[in-house]
Amino acid sequence: MTVFERLAALRALMKENGLVAYVVPGNDPHASEYMASHWYEMQWLSGFNGESGTVVVTLDRALLWTDSRYYLQAGIELKDSTIELMRESDIDCPSIVEWLTTPANLPSREENKVLVGVNPEMFSVNDFGEWKTKLADAGIAIQSIDLIKPLWTEGRPAIPQDKLYPYSADYAGETVESKLARMREAISRQHSAIRNQPYALIVSALDEIAWLLNIRGNDVEYNPVVISYVVLEADRCTLFTDLNKIDTVAQNYLDFNNIDFKPYEAVFAYINGLKGTVVYDGARANEALFEAIPADCKKINAKSPILIEKAKKNAVELEGERIAMRQDAVALTRFFKWLEEEAFANGQTQTEWDIMEKLHEFRAKGDNFVEESFGTIAGYLGNGAIVHYAATKENCAVVKPEGMLLVDSGGQYLDGTTDITRTIWLGGDIPAQAKRDYTYVLKGHIALGTARFPRGTRGNQLDALAKQYMWEAGITYGHGTGHGVGHFLGCHEGPQNVRTDNNPTVLEVGHIVSDEPGIYRTGQWGIRTENLITVIPAEQTEATTTEDQWLTFEHLTLCFYDTSLIDRSLMTDKEIAWLNAYHARVYKETAPLLNADEAAYLARKCAALE
Amino acid sequence: MTVFERLAALRALMKENGLVAYVVPGNDPHASEYMASHWYEMQWLSGFNGESGTVVVTLDRALLWTDSRYYLQAGIELKDSTIELMRESDIDCPSIVEWLTTPANLPSREENKVLVGVNPEMFSVNDFGEWKTKLADAGIAIQSIDLIKPLWTEGRPAIPQDKLYPYSADYAGETVESKLARMREAISRQHSAIRNQPYALIVSALDEIAWLLNIRGNDVEYNPVVISYVVLEADRCTLFTDLNKIDTVAQNYLDFNNIDFKPYEAVFAYINGLKGTVVYDGARANEALFEAIPADCKKINAKSPILIEKAKKNAVELEGERIAMRQDAVALTRFFKWLEEEAFANGQTQTEWDIMEKLHEFRAKGDNFVEESFGTIAGYLGNGAIVHYAATKENCAVVKPEGMLLVDSGGQYLDGTTDITRTIWLGGDIPAQAKRDYTYVLKGHIALGTARFPRGTRGNQLDALAKQYMWEAGITYGHGTGHGVGHFLGCHEGPQNVRTDNNPTVLEVGHIVSDEPGIYRTGQWGIRTENLITVIPAEQTEATTTEDQWLTFEHLTLCFYDTSLIDRSLMTDKEIAWLNAYHARVYKETAPLLNADEAAYLARKCAALE
Repeated sequence: MTVFERLAALRALMKENGLVAYVVPGNDPHASEYMASHWYEMQWLSGFNGESGTVVVTLDRALLWTDSRYYLQAGIELKDSTIELMRESDIDCPSIVEWLTTPANLPSREENKVLVGVNPEMFSVNDFGEWKTKLADAGIAIQSIDLIKPLWTEGRPAIPQDKLYPYSADYAGETVESKLARMREAISRQHSAIRNQPYALIVSALDEIAWLLNIRGNDVEYNPVVISYVVLEADRCTLFTDLNKIDTVAQNYLDFNNIDFKPYEAVFAYINGLKGTVVYDGARANEALFEAIPADCKKINAKSPILIEKAKKNAVELEGERIAMRQDAVALTRFFKWLEEEAFANGQTQTEWDIMEKLHEFRAKGDNFVEESFGTIAGYLGNGAIVHYAATKENCAVVKPEGMLLVDSGGQYLDGTTDITRTIWLGGDIPAQAKRDYTYVLKGHIALGTARFPRGTRGNQLDALAKQYMWEAGITYGHGTGHGVGHFLGCHEGPQNVRTDNNPTVLEVGHIVSDEPGIYRTGQWGIRTENLITVIPAEQTEATTTEDQWLTFEHLTLCFYDTSLIDRSLMTDKEIAWLNAYHARVYKETAPLLNADEAAYLARKCAALE
Repeated sequence: MTVFERLAALRALMKENGLVAYVVPGNDPHASEYMASHWYEMQWLSGFNGESGTVVVTLDRALLWTDSRYYLQAGIELKDSTIELMRESDIDCPSIVEWLTTPANLPSREENKVLVGVNPEMFSVNDFGEWKTKLADAGIAIQSIDLIKPLWTEGRPAIPQDKLYPYSADYAGETVESKLARMREAISRQHSAIRNQPYALIVSALDEIAWLLNIRGNDVEYNPVVISYVVLEADRCTLFTDLNKIDTVAQNYLDFNNIDFKPYEAVFAYINGLKGTVVYDGARANEALFEAIPADCKKINAKSPILIEKAKKNAVELEGERIAMRQDAVALTRFFKWLEEEAFANGQTQTEWDIMEKLHEFRAKGDNFVEESFGTIAGYLGNGAIVHYAATKENCAVVKPEGMLLVDSGGQYLDGTTDITRTIWLGGDIPAQAKRDYTYVLKGHIALGTARFPRGTRGNQLDALAKQYMWEAGITYGHGTGHGVGHFLGCHEGPQNVRTDNNPTVLEVGHIVSDEPGIYRTGQWGIRTENLITVIPAEQTEATTTEDQWLTFEHLTLCFYDTSLIDRSLMTDKEIAWLNAYHARVYKETAPLLNADEAAYLARKCAALE
């Protein structure tokens, strides 16, 4: 089928069902960052292969909304498809809901007689509710219906059937039994109304399930999760997943932990048989799960207790992170040594893609390495200034031994997850502005990463610490300063972060966040410096108030900064002292894992500054 | 009547009306910070004369909730009253709603048969709604009824009848006509549903009314407001106030500006006759106003557009602030010179009260001085560490020429409102810790007051800038870093501030906030340094993103810091340069208004540091 035929077939089905529009978002049923190709419905329908977008089909038009990362690609891939490109960042680009509620775009309406269809599995409960309200205000009703399933029958990839595997408590630091007990405790404490009554918690986020049950899998790229749902009740815990994923080892493990398992699709019928109170996290649970809850159940939409507890890493998880970081440090040292000493020897050049592959090669040799934690960003010169830049083998820059290179990469190790950005100068004279930019970024990185703050402080209160020096020069950046990081799970996780928005989450001991300010000059260079840091108790000094619990950060990442890019005159002695101590620690923890030649290289890179 | 008789009479009325509890909060109908004594219902009923508290009376008990500032006073004043003191800061102290919903405290209940009475004028719409919901969950209904009015007939102070006076557009910088037009525009823009339909905005906050109509009055201490309500409609504007307040000048002014006026109490009947849509700010409008809105009106609870626009001072208002600040600077210079050279001459001592009076005396000589903008805080030694300390003539410390003195004071001038805190060392050897504390506070004060930040930044993002240095030493403070300030109006105003909480308001050009970090050592000293600063556009430098509008602050306050308390080793050269430039400006703007002797004194205090 061509895109043209697919749209025609969809429109026939829409007419059969009395729909005037059908919306296909680029989501999966688990609100995942990385999706299995089984759910590439948006891509299948439109022929557009970007990772983010939403298609709206009416009886006479079809449109695709996507963001600025994909304008070029979408322009090419949508050519001759009849699908119009809606560029989200354009000031006059309406939101999808605005477009749907503009009278000229849909047939004239009588109250609730105009029907728009969506697959409720692809919408979170909260998003669905918001659309429903806004559309209803304009006299449009929304209907839950999956029209892609009956159309996409040929060539649709199956849901991955890789085995799931137990993740030892030696890595996780806590048994399933203990986690289940803690979560049941949290639910009862949080919702006093359900005490002594039947209740169920619906869990649909894949990283929450992996954490809760101490299981991992290979179902999507970059995140070691298992495609599944969980329903947690007072007296049982049920995992819904493709039964092919459960081999004897997995079955024994689940049996031992009293975890029932049923087929993936059985979750809807199971939820439909629940009694009492059903708790779900409307930001992540999909609308189809919600619609399966019996009408006479009490429904509570609340932030998942698993999300909250998962974010606070225990001592074993943190020790694992430190082990993974040493493996990462070895790979990065070898990689930067190769870049400096071999990559450009004898007039050779490299492409950004070559560099990404080489880094992967070094990292893959690490103990307990499983996979990358996201697609490496290697941005040379102006490409470094494109925040979501992704070089491909076919389409990437040639790198020469001159100018700025930004490398943002990370690994999934059985021991933990890493994510690091370093920006280095490959050769040639360094412009004063490049040094200044690098130094402002580094100063901000140090200010955030060394902050001491009282318990109860949120990430958004610390964000300006990372920006204050560049702000003084009238420079800022648009991305977050820090995202939460999982433990051998998602490289991005909530609820903690360091951003400007009013996230109410306070930073707590065991939270891991990234510390990654940046400066981007279009067409010139991008500079970002990123470590992972974890919240730890700070030494108690001379508190004058009752807020006597002080917190600070431990830097988990172990890798030198490019000191050739530092403008020493902008750095305070205190900052230099911190830098020297950090470099001494990097050397001390990494050198024992290197050969003599590598250790000598590392020693040079970690040499103390005056 | 004694308190005992008052409680008995109230209980008789409660029984007549079928109430099991009656709640009397220490509020007025306008959510005012400073109240006219007419509304001291809580004080009249309980005999407790503190400024904050709520009395709950049941058929067999009476309790007063208040905060830690008043525990001592309440303990004394409630003695023998049968009223139990509820200490709000105690960990096991229930909130009033928690107490009311604890089964043992009120008679056993059938659904909504247990009635608690309150005077709806004393509750904001939002607070009333929250209580109603929480009480209903416990089977308790809330009834709007005023039981104090029929009891407090003897000796109740009248609502103030001072004349209101026009406040010239020469000071306000904008005519009433223009303000009314802008507010009508804002309402229509904000609530598209009401376009071309009748609508009314209820205004009950006294500073909003004063700003909107360019009127001022003398009805409460410290704030030059007029006790009144306003109802703003598309085709008329009606002021509800005691008609005795309107003399010929005022009447001509109101007539000229097409402002109708009616008796204060007539507001309820007027609201009851409205049609179409009624807009109110539920955080400030009282429940009685809300209950007067006809059932068939559409009701919109929205942040007041007046609150939002009032906060953005125009050029004339800002120029007035600068004039007021020079008057304040003269008074403060003379005051500190007196403290240093005369107050303790020949072995004299002073009390904190003497000092407060002396400062008032100096300030009162200023051009266009009207009154103080709040009760001066003069805290000597350990008294400076009590954040809400208020010395009285009878109960205050003797001040000697040694140790630390904190003075927080402000004035209302026709030109604008001032608020300044300086902490000085009166004599004797300065402990190293005192210098350190003073310097951390000063560094934070400078960091916030010199911040450059992109448009869209909220106050809570900047709060940590003022705290970062003391945080490093494990010190913090519990009060806000900055509050909004009105123009010849409330010394405290919203919506802008610099606090830790998630206030969504972004800082905008023309906002005035205070910049007042502090360090408090119980029994030793309190240090606070406060200037008023206003948001101004910053010089455009080298923006790399589209967030190309940069903002910074202008310091409005003009007064030297006590440089003898500075630990120079903790200050950067940049901070010293800022300090020297500020001191040079203070001298330049103040000296022309001083005599030669005073100017010489000021020159010494403003001498540049190396």
